[in-house]
Amino acid sequence: MLPGLMMDYPLTLDKIVEHARRMTPQKRIKTKLPAGGWHSYSYADFAARVNKLGNLLAGLGLGLGDRVGTFAWNNHQHLECYFGIPMAGAVCHTLNIRLSAEQLKYIIEHAGDKVIIVDGTLLPLLEPIAHQLHGVEHFLLFNCEASAVDRLPRAALYEDLLAQASDDFTPRCADENMAMGLCYTSGTTGLPKGVLYSHRSMMLHTLGVLAAAAIGPTEADVVLPVVPQFHAMAWGLPYACAWAGASMIMPGPHLQPAPLAEMIEAERVTIAAGVPTIWNGLYHELRANPRDISCVTQLVVGGSAMPRGLIAAYERELGVNVVHAWGMTELSPIGTVSKLQSRHADLDEAARWDVKAKQGYFVPGVEARIVDDAGTASPWDGETMGELQVRGYWVAGAYFRSERDEEHFTSDGWFRTGDVCTIDASGYMTITDRTKDLVKSGGEWISSVDLENALMSQESVLEAAVIAVPDARWGERPLAVLVPLADGCDESKLNECLLQAFPKFWLPDRYVIVDEIPKTGVGKMDKKALRAMFAGGELG
Amino acid sequence: MLPGLMMDYPLTLDKIVEHARRMTPQKRIKTKLPAGGWHSYSYADFAARVNKLGNLLAGLGLGLGDRVGTFAWNNHQHLECYFGIPMAGAVCHTLNIRLSAEQLKYIIEHAGDKVIIVDGTLLPLLEPIAHQLHGVEHFLLFNCEASAVDRLPRAALYEDLLAQASDDFTPRCADENMAMGLCYTSGTTGLPKGVLYSHRSMMLHTLGVLAAAAIGPTEADVVLPVVPQFHAMAWGLPYACAWAGASMIMPGPHLQPAPLAEMIEAERVTIAAGVPTIWNGLYHELRANPRDISCVTQLVVGGSAMPRGLIAAYERELGVNVVHAWGMTELSPIGTVSKLQSRHADLDEAARWDVKAKQGYFVPGVEARIVDDAGTASPWDGETMGELQVRGYWVAGAYFRSERDEEHFTSDGWFRTGDVCTIDASGYMTITDRTKDLVKSGGEWISSVDLENALMSQESVLEAAVIAVPDARWGERPLAVLVPLADGCDESKLNECLLQAFPKFWLPDRYVIVDEIPKTGVGKMDKKALRAMFAGGELG
Repeated sequence: MLPGLMMDYPLTLDKIVEHARRMTPQKRIKTKLPAGGWHSYSYADFAARVNKLGNLLAGLGLGLGDRVGTFAWNNHQHLECYFGIPMAGAVCHTLNIRLSAEQLKYIIEHAGDKVIIVDGTLLPLLEPIAHQLHGVEHFLLFNCEASAVDRLPRAALYEDLLAQASDDFTPRCADENMAMGLCYTSGTTGLPKGVLYSHRSMMLHTLGVLAAAAIGPTEADVVLPVVPQFHAMAWGLPYACAWAGASMIMPGPHLQPAPLAEMIEAERVTIAAGVPTIWNGLYHELRANPRDISCVTQLVVGGSAMPRGLIAAYERELGVNVVHAWGMTELSPIGTVSKLQSRHADLDEAARWDVKAKQGYFVPGVEARIVDDAGTASPWDGETMGELQVRGYWVAGAYFRSERDEEHFTSDGWFRTGDVCTIDASGYMTITDRTKDLVKSGGEWISSVDLENALMSQESVLEAAVIAVPDARWGERPLAVLVPLADGCDESKLNECLLQAFPKFWLPDRYVIVDEIPKTGVGKMDKKALRAMFAGGELG
Repeated sequence: MLPGLMMDYPLTLDKIVEHARRMTPQKRIKTKLPAGGWHSYSYADFAARVNKLGNLLAGLGLGLGDRVGTFAWNNHQHLECYFGIPMAGAVCHTLNIRLSAEQLKYIIEHAGDKVIIVDGTLLPLLEPIAHQLHGVEHFLLFNCEASAVDRLPRAALYEDLLAQASDDFTPRCADENMAMGLCYTSGTTGLPKGVLYSHRSMMLHTLGVLAAAAIGPTEADVVLPVVPQFHAMAWGLPYACAWAGASMIMPGPHLQPAPLAEMIEAERVTIAAGVPTIWNGLYHELRANPRDISCVTQLVVGGSAMPRGLIAAYERELGVNVVHAWGMTELSPIGTVSKLQSRHADLDEAARWDVKAKQGYFVPGVEARIVDDAGTASPWDGETMGELQVRGYWVAGAYFRSERDEEHFTSDGWFRTGDVCTIDASGYMTITDRTKDLVKSGGEWISSVDLENALMSQESVLEAAVIAVPDARWGERPLAVLVPLADGCDESKLNECLLQAFPKFWLPDRYVIVDEIPKTGVGKMDKKALRAMFAGGELG
């Protein structure tokens, strides 16, 4: 073997901070404060504070690979953690603030967090379990009164310690294969599982995000990550923005439709990223209280499928380009992006929306295949469903403190996503379901997701979930759970509409009206809870 | 150290071919044939032939790391070599067809090429030395009559061997640190030096090129690499295009202004890349024979500085956005790109062209510093000149079969570019000279490049070169060598113009009119030759 003679220059996150400090020192990062008003500082300030945080953590005696939890909204301190913790040689473990106290305790103990950095506005959520977390040596608090330290054991103020730290710091992450981040998936079955990112995988993911065919932020962009930083590393946007020198707008706790609408208009946001629920809420807000948000060139949506009708409404009524994407915590998270390609140039708008409602093409760096029940590769014909398996530069190879198992990883090195999808001849992927959510009726597959999308495209429906319920004759049959808009839904009209797209046996046997569909900690519809509610088919 | 738990997925070039084969199988690669007309095939065809080439080379008994030379224009066979040779575990050594027979022989023997793949249209250039190249075990010829094999020893037809090879191939490049490419710099002093790229460095460079802030080609682009494939891997465009699935237009030997103009218009090229000489010629062609080339969204220019006047003319007269870039063979080659940033949005066009005439900002993945004669870091104030030093993911760390020396590499791990430049507070770099081309007059530095640009912006001047000539009183003084447009130049008018921008002591002591400025093998002005011609200040 003849090795190349290029520099040995590791893929470590300190490179991003140094690049931002030199290339775009004057660009701004703004955070909407909990009480309203803005905090704003430059990338130069940011870089100095990241280095201070590195010294602060080193001073606490953290060893290489130790885990440091974060429990925070999207704000500048959380951004500092994204870089400062890994640069100190530790692992940034983003804790999901929407979990129950019990789940939180399980995850903090499973991860072995030695330090937790806490957003003071979230203190009430952590307080009940803090005294039981014996492995946590330090709680560092920000966004709070000085007296808040009395509410947690072994607590100190983040800002006080930062003020004492030097900004002259030598990163302790020389090896690109070191772990840098940890994020637990709130899987629909079993215990939460930790995905342990390396510096290398996150740097490559960042380069992947910077590609024009992926998201491609540049210095000129103003980026609003509505997707929480505790959810799949905020889709990698903080790293991509810092490397590109893009302006960042951090919404703090202000995730309600009205403040988001105001923020987007006032800050001239060009890229905003969040789950469909958020954009559905924003759309209805803007219908009620119009604002001009046509500054948005990419409304990035992921986490679950964006209904085609909503994509169309954003484009037609608000002049906003929706970029549908698909990812998973195990993919750091970006897998596909659904931008239009050259052959779509002449399509009319209805046909364009059909394309945009797909999850899209796999970005450079992610390789995919679909397989049937027997594990045989399925054709990319846009029709044949198969289980989606992926591999690539930023795909998990195992879970933290867990045996590598066949349920999640194939013996030939692919990650089993648990999603069922079709892929067409041009590589555009469409999720049809989760393997666990498919309705298997009389030997045929019924996609719960397709039914949900069709139902949610109806004027009368705000939200819809379809689950399988046991059926003596067919094995399983679909049941639809609906949240109606205003005046309720007419079942026969819904069936009529579904029959335009699907065979008769796909029609739900029952419709159930509820006030609210239960959600998981990351805001997805909680089908596990729905199945528990309607397990026997009873009407809750 | 706690390692991350992401997949082990090496940065090797086979990933690009597989991505193109699956994601954009139907997209086209077109080559303008030597006799006119087009060859066109799909990425699916391309991938199959690359795999055949892998088998072909393995069948010749090549070992891992063996060098395979290419001696060709930009065409689809050369593209196949770009991928097939490294995937066979060998090193793709691009030979510069513009070198003298003696230089070629030196480089082929220094590299130890075992196979050379030859474009038949270039046979006359290789024929004179072929029988002396005893280390070359096989010459493979394409673009030729079958009888051409009689003109070289140990020769066979590329197409014949390819036809016999299977397209079922297992890449032999499992280790990302393996060498994949070799390109010799035609340095202005000393012997040519080989830069040995690894799979890893080229993959990271490709991700760097794909970033929106760099070039950022997508599937929708139609890319014309005028920059030869034997010049710094055609700036990495073949790899970036294949990964993005962009259409490629390969010009073959048709690099004259008229066919280029026709090609750009007819093929609706969106990205074209070449040196200033090419774009200067194209501009004058389009003045004489107008065509609409406003389809070009990025006219990428590198290799040497593009005069501001030419940037302005393209934008104002042709509606073409010029993207100035800077690179070197040692940087794979991309270092900087000069796209406009957010703060330039409100500039008038004259001010915008000032920005675009700079070499631009360092792209993510490349780190820079400037130092003075004493090796001390110079400030980034846009005024202080210093020697540019870089490091990063795709920067050479040593030359092939050469001791790592202090002339090119600093003891603390930076590559000395040999360029003198300024960098402003926003990281925009402006080359002011080569360290070797600076005119040192009475202890002051005079930038030969600044004078050349000012002279070339004059209506009466087609080309200008400024060199230092010895001077008894001042040490060195500038001498300007001019190629006038049509009616000759008026020396006093030139001086008048220079005085608007520069101090009086910068004015050339003499102007010399020539028919042509000698060029190096890669089309740059050959200042070594000029210095030889005018060493004593005599008028040639």
